[in-house]
Amino acid sequence: MIMKNILNKRLTELDKAYLAGFLDGDGSIVSQIVKDKGRKYGFYIRISVCFYQSTQNYWYILWLKKKLKPYGYVRKRNNDTMADLTIVAKKPVKELLKALYPYLVLKKTLCKLVLSIIDDLEAVSTEADFLKVCKKVDKTAKLTYSKNRKITYAYVKNYLNSPVETS
Amino acid sequence: MIMKNILNKRLTELDKAYLAGFLDGDGSIVSQIVKDKGRKYGFYIRISVCFYQSTQNYWYILWLKKKLKPYGYVRKRNNDTMADLTIVAKKPVKELLKALYPYLVLKKTLCKLVLSIIDDLEAVSTEADFLKVCKKVDKTAKLTYSKNRKITYAYVKNYLNSPVETS
Repeated sequence: MIMKNILNKRLTELDKAYLAGFLDGDGSIVSQIVKDKGRKYGFYIRISVCFYQSTQNYWYILWLKKKLKPYGYVRKRNNDTMADLTIVAKKPVKELLKALYPYLVLKKTLCKLVLSIIDDLEAVSTEADFLKVCKKVDKTAKLTYSKNRKITYAYVKNYLNSPVETS
Repeated sequence: MIMKNILNKRLTELDKAYLAGFLDGDGSIVSQIVKDKGRKYGFYIRISVCFYQSTQNYWYILWLKKKLKPYGYVRKRNNDTMADLTIVAKKPVKELLKALYPYLVLKKTLCKLVLSIIDDLEAVSTEADFLKVCKKVDKTAKLTYSKNRKITYAYVKNYLNSPVETS
């Protein structure tokens, strides 16, 4: 069965180029390792794409939301001074990143890496597979100059190797 | 004589859409009233378009510079942590804004206003004309939520009306 790519159909090439420009400028592509004891390996990988804007331009976030419909939800932060449109879940993020990839410049390498993480995740069947993905997540953190990450590949490896019963 | 639009010829529509997206996200279109006793009315209007990026991604600023060649110069600021490509002077800014205008979303109204300021400036022949332009510059400041502007329409009007010899 072929997975329908809703965004790819609805967005024109010019839309995609514009959105890639905006994402390069004021957006983020994030992959994180998140602790969750309910998951098979005690962690899961959270992938998200975010578009930011001052709440003074809230209409723009709503414009983006409409453009990327049915994906994305709006958040307000920092005492409602900042707003963003966030797209999570692998399928929507994959669709969006595949659509924007050809036009991205600044975040092109990051985009490719995150797309490969999503593909890898679909194929994870062992702990070793999962750890490999965690290593790739560490790589994305280097590309975004992220600091102070607590949950890294090493953290997960250590956790999984510990003799404590985790499930 | 028709003024050649270098950028409009060299950039594809997809380039323009991408750059409009980036400008909407991480750029600025600025018009300012600048004091300069050497000028006819004691002030001039400085127009600029700026694209920002962390110095960690300095290659991207150089990529932009190449894209917008022959316009723009690179600056580093805040202890070299931030870099930007700035395009000043009316002709280059007019070319660039005209090229990006169809694709801008967030800064579309601002772009139109700044383009009209550039056109007005070309036709200024009296103090009253110049003051009208200053009023428009005040309007752009509202669109960008600029605060703490010292030199406004009112400032210039007051200065020009003062009995002190200014030239």
